[in-house]
Amino acid sequence: MRTLLALLGVIFLSVLSSAQIQPQLNLMPMPSSVQQGSGQLPINESFSATVTGTHDASLDNGVQRFTRNLSRITGIPFRASASGTPTLEVHSDHGRGAVQKLEEDESYELTVTGSGAKITAPTPLGALHGLQTFLQLAQITPTGFAVPAVTIKDQPRFPWRGMLIDVSRHFIPIDVLKRNLDGMEAVKMNVMHWHLSDDQGFRAESKKFPKLTGMGSEGKFYTQEEIRDLLAYAHDRGIRVIPEFDTPGHSRSWFVGYPELASNPGPFTVENENGASSVTDPTREETYKFMDKFVEEMGKLFPDQFFHIGGDEVDPKYWDSNPKIQAFKEAHAMKTDADLQAYYNQRLEKILARHHKTMVGWDEILHPDLPKDIVVQSWRGQQSLAAAAQQGYRGLLSYGYYLDLMWPTSRHYATDPMSGAAANLTPEQKKLILGGESCQWAEWVTPENIDSHIWPRNAAIAERLWSPQDVTDVNSMYTRMHAISFELEALGLTHRSARDQMLQRMAGGADITALRVLADVVEPVKDYNRWSDEEKGPINFHAPLTHLIDAVYPESDAARQFANLVQQFAQSGYKDRTLEGQIRGWLTLWRDNDAKLRPLLQSSYLLEEDIPLSQNLAMLGSAGLQALDYLGKGQPEPELWKTQQLAVIDQAKKPVAGLLLMVTAPVQQLVEASAGQTQQK
Amino acid sequence: MRTLLALLGVIFLSVLSSAQIQPQLNLMPMPSSVQQGSGQLPINESFSATVTGTHDASLDNGVQRFTRNLSRITGIPFRASASGTPTLEVHSDHGRGAVQKLEEDESYELTVTGSGAKITAPTPLGALHGLQTFLQLAQITPTGFAVPAVTIKDQPRFPWRGMLIDVSRHFIPIDVLKRNLDGMEAVKMNVMHWHLSDDQGFRAESKKFPKLTGMGSEGKFYTQEEIRDLLAYAHDRGIRVIPEFDTPGHSRSWFVGYPELASNPGPFTVENENGASSVTDPTREETYKFMDKFVEEMGKLFPDQFFHIGGDEVDPKYWDSNPKIQAFKEAHAMKTDADLQAYYNQRLEKILARHHKTMVGWDEILHPDLPKDIVVQSWRGQQSLAAAAQQGYRGLLSYGYYLDLMWPTSRHYATDPMSGAAANLTPEQKKLILGGESCQWAEWVTPENIDSHIWPRNAAIAERLWSPQDVTDVNSMYTRMHAISFELEALGLTHRSARDQMLQRMAGGADITALRVLADVVEPVKDYNRWSDEEKGPINFHAPLTHLIDAVYPESDAARQFANLVQQFAQSGYKDRTLEGQIRGWLTLWRDNDAKLRPLLQSSYLLEEDIPLSQNLAMLGSAGLQALDYLGKGQPEPELWKTQQLAVIDQAKKPVAGLLLMVTAPVQQLVEASAGQTQQK
Repeated sequence: MRTLLALLGVIFLSVLSSAQIQPQLNLMPMPSSVQQGSGQLPINESFSATVTGTHDASLDNGVQRFTRNLSRITGIPFRASASGTPTLEVHSDHGRGAVQKLEEDESYELTVTGSGAKITAPTPLGALHGLQTFLQLAQITPTGFAVPAVTIKDQPRFPWRGMLIDVSRHFIPIDVLKRNLDGMEAVKMNVMHWHLSDDQGFRAESKKFPKLTGMGSEGKFYTQEEIRDLLAYAHDRGIRVIPEFDTPGHSRSWFVGYPELASNPGPFTVENENGASSVTDPTREETYKFMDKFVEEMGKLFPDQFFHIGGDEVDPKYWDSNPKIQAFKEAHAMKTDADLQAYYNQRLEKILARHHKTMVGWDEILHPDLPKDIVVQSWRGQQSLAAAAQQGYRGLLSYGYYLDLMWPTSRHYATDPMSGAAANLTPEQKKLILGGESCQWAEWVTPENIDSHIWPRNAAIAERLWSPQDVTDVNSMYTRMHAISFELEALGLTHRSARDQMLQRMAGGADITALRVLADVVEPVKDYNRWSDEEKGPINFHAPLTHLIDAVYPESDAARQFANLVQQFAQSGYKDRTLEGQIRGWLTLWRDNDAKLRPLLQSSYLLEEDIPLSQNLAMLGSAGLQALDYLGKGQPEPELWKTQQLAVIDQAKKPVAGLLLMVTAPVQQLVEASAGQTQQK
Repeated sequence: MRTLLALLGVIFLSVLSSAQIQPQLNLMPMPSSVQQGSGQLPINESFSATVTGTHDASLDNGVQRFTRNLSRITGIPFRASASGTPTLEVHSDHGRGAVQKLEEDESYELTVTGSGAKITAPTPLGALHGLQTFLQLAQITPTGFAVPAVTIKDQPRFPWRGMLIDVSRHFIPIDVLKRNLDGMEAVKMNVMHWHLSDDQGFRAESKKFPKLTGMGSEGKFYTQEEIRDLLAYAHDRGIRVIPEFDTPGHSRSWFVGYPELASNPGPFTVENENGASSVTDPTREETYKFMDKFVEEMGKLFPDQFFHIGGDEVDPKYWDSNPKIQAFKEAHAMKTDADLQAYYNQRLEKILARHHKTMVGWDEILHPDLPKDIVVQSWRGQQSLAAAAQQGYRGLLSYGYYLDLMWPTSRHYATDPMSGAAANLTPEQKKLILGGESCQWAEWVTPENIDSHIWPRNAAIAERLWSPQDVTDVNSMYTRMHAISFELEALGLTHRSARDQMLQRMAGGADITALRVLADVVEPVKDYNRWSDEEKGPINFHAPLTHLIDAVYPESDAARQFANLVQQFAQSGYKDRTLEGQIRGWLTLWRDNDAKLRPLLQSSYLLEEDIPLSQNLAMLGSAGLQALDYLGKGQPEPELWKTQQLAVIDQAKKPVAGLLLMVTAPVQQLVEASAGQTQQK
């Protein structure tokens, strides 16, 4: 046995030296200033936190919540009755108002030494952010949980760092929203933009107009009590909630109960298949009476200063085909439908102003007749943001932050509100750009998979909006996002774990190991390509979202890692045998996976469509392995073989069941490298 | 490409034929009569269920809950407003009372054809059970979700099928209890035995004696409102809730606030480290006045007929060392402490009777002076259950169902209330055996890992108490339990998913693949071996339960499967090359795993203790592989080698960090087989 042990020892030592785990600060968003010290503060059962400075109930709650979360992350049950010097002091100079404002100071300083930690901030908001930083710093070490000694000075780059959640296309229950608010708090986002109405459903209870949800929600809506509960939950976490009631377009759900608001006769339903569509009729005085009462009620329910009226994508055909509306335009000397929408928005803006609200709307609301205090949210790009700023309007960027487009994180991360046309603004104009919002449009999400569509990618967008503009290193971003992703799951999000649940459903009781191998290397098609399939017709919002495309992560870690491996291998002139061994391991796994997976794919109606995908992966594995063989021999492969392989690769590039194999390009690189080499022997 | 495809095709076909997935009825507990028909009932978006017969609110709730759960399992969003003929008709002849009774009829019939399904039952309880059976029958097929055509007639073998949950040693929050009630409903258990007080904490709010929780719970207790909410939740699911307030032993937490109840002077605390222990003083009249008020209050809060007074493990030293108590015994001509406890129980029983409650207690309460309507719960075995029945007392078996002992499911499953001494009872005496209860004692559980200590093993105990006595096939049990385990996770339990969360904590942000390989083949030490370590002293109930022993499943699936593989290989005379290949795959994985895992183990204070475990697994892998080599050659291995390997195996059998490597025995079998073979060449 001694011999064996000695032998094994050699293996261990060699691995150790190459894979030693380095402590690093896995913070996201990255603070504006981080100065690492020496030593670390242990987090053990005697940990406690205390609040000093101005007393503030919301900060007290925040510290309690923080302690609970630290306990969840470390698994250590801190005692409520801890005595002695507190480990962490949290100090805020001032308290908080009942309604959070846009321009509040969110800065904080965090100092950690081997013997204690202190967060100081001018406001409870800053202190709450500091607590999140502390939480992210807590890491496991060989001697216990600890926070490394550090001095951090931090404040946000933009005051408006939001996420839009569409709850109309698919209803998202309160508990799911709450866990996403927890996630937003963790990454220091401070606005939840609640897209509460759209064609497919009106989700906020109105007591004055009960038919809005009574007829326009299929019974899936939030009561006012639930809304107040959510608002308090968000407020506790330093998050403002902006309601959006989209009008005059995207508003079929209003017309189900109140067809008189529409520009053409109904009847209307919230189902795509039946019922006409329409837009609001801006020519009837009754419309404005309705909106006045509605804004009064909702303005009280939602205390935030800002109120989003949508205003996007108004289909002109409903106005153009109504002779009364055309006559109105003529009588008021309006030339275009844009003029008519501007008229509507002006009237709406006056109603909002009467109820002390500031209007926010999408690009299309921008019109010189509107007052300068409105805010324009750009889904079109920095160009329209810059145009608004040049006219003196405040703006928010959402272009580039659409989570539903299934982009890789790096692409969101590269989108900066101040880039492109906005880069050329004057300093004064730049100040008008308040920040941005990621957007989770809900055509393809359910309560089950929405977390994975948002997280962890949203953390990188949060960093873009919080951290200094020069924080742009993509590798660092991925490393830190990976760590934060686990933190977010520990806090209760399900963006990683839901996939297994969904795969298990597809597999019945069968083993899902081979299914995971396939799921790991695919991504859903990008942009609107899932949607734009003419053959399929309009989206059925009642269809189950239970296919592989609904379960997989928007971005494949394995594919990114494999591409990096092949890149490194290329840089070694295809000589590094360790890298080759790793690449060979992946390719072999993929080549052999289809045989294991096939019976399962054939047994499940949810998986049958993925058979060609699994087959393509197997062929890619084979192609890559053969390319490695040729590379190893230093022989170019035969021309016929190369032609065959490139045909295989071309086939593997085509989406199957809405899914893309993300390892196609690196395999192609191997095949081409092998073909390109000259005879060496 | 065509060539490649053809080649891959061959692989697929060969795998397909051997691994074709067979539909089977994954029901647990197995119904008393199942007759399979032909065809299947599709479950699609038009599914709906309706209730006929006597109107009953709890059944209406049950059908709604069932529909929600069927939606979770299938991922299909059924429409609330489904029209047309309902797919499933649920019929109950009678309604339910506000308080569920012990001997209610729980039978049901379920008929499923290709065009519809019907559940008929005399009571809503039976109908609720039928719904759970239907839920388990829903399975994925190549054409969609479906329930196979079947006729089931079913009723429970025992009327009392319970689970005890100890919430004293570690407090378990209401939401965790609720998801476990969901699990109990799924496997047709009908009693939650709520162990609400013990030395370490008193968990139920008393308004009359507020110091019980005020001083005896460290702030961790259920308010009466929360208790009522839980009772309603349980009642909806056909589950009775029996409170247990353990007395006169196991009751230190009572004495923290009310030291006058104790047999020796305090002060008392709920912490093991400080504070004296004690048992209740049965000689003071004030004790009975206290208990009378207490039982009155709790008897109203908990409406069930039965009331559990504990009565187990009374340490006599507290009575023996109190001269007043000794004098009392003498004055009343009591010879033993058992007589004194019987006196206490008699007085307590009269109090219970006055408040219309039937007493339940552990083995030790059995005494001829007590009336025959009490119920004895046996933690000692069928022997004491039989003894009670022979004296005319009703009984419950818990011996053999202690989930905290970390037994394999098969061992619980083999324990029958009617076996052993109970098998020889007369038919009349047998009727006195009401059923049994699994017991989840909470020394080693937290809200995070309690599910995995209970499930899925508890499903097999539920089957033992529901299904006919001759349902004993262990392989069938494991197959069905495996399927039900996934159903239980889909319903919200976390018995599988929590492990990854905990492993991820131990690993920081690092990859846990290699850690899973180790976790898959270990089990915690059995019985009280974790506890009985004298060196460690008494359990610290405030210590984090975050080590590998806390995260792993009580039973290793991988080890069971590997042992089966080796068994089959042995049966083939060690000739079957396919089996050998599979065994070799496992052994190679284990041999190579330590090298991958070691850096991680060294980086985490929670994993460092597992280094020898991982090392032992690697050595077992090597030993097994070498044994296979010798077996392949048909050569006996050298004597020295064998001696070395058996030493390795002996070492691997020793627990490390409280964990046992469960693949040691089959590896030993391979080594010994190899040594035992005669030279064949």
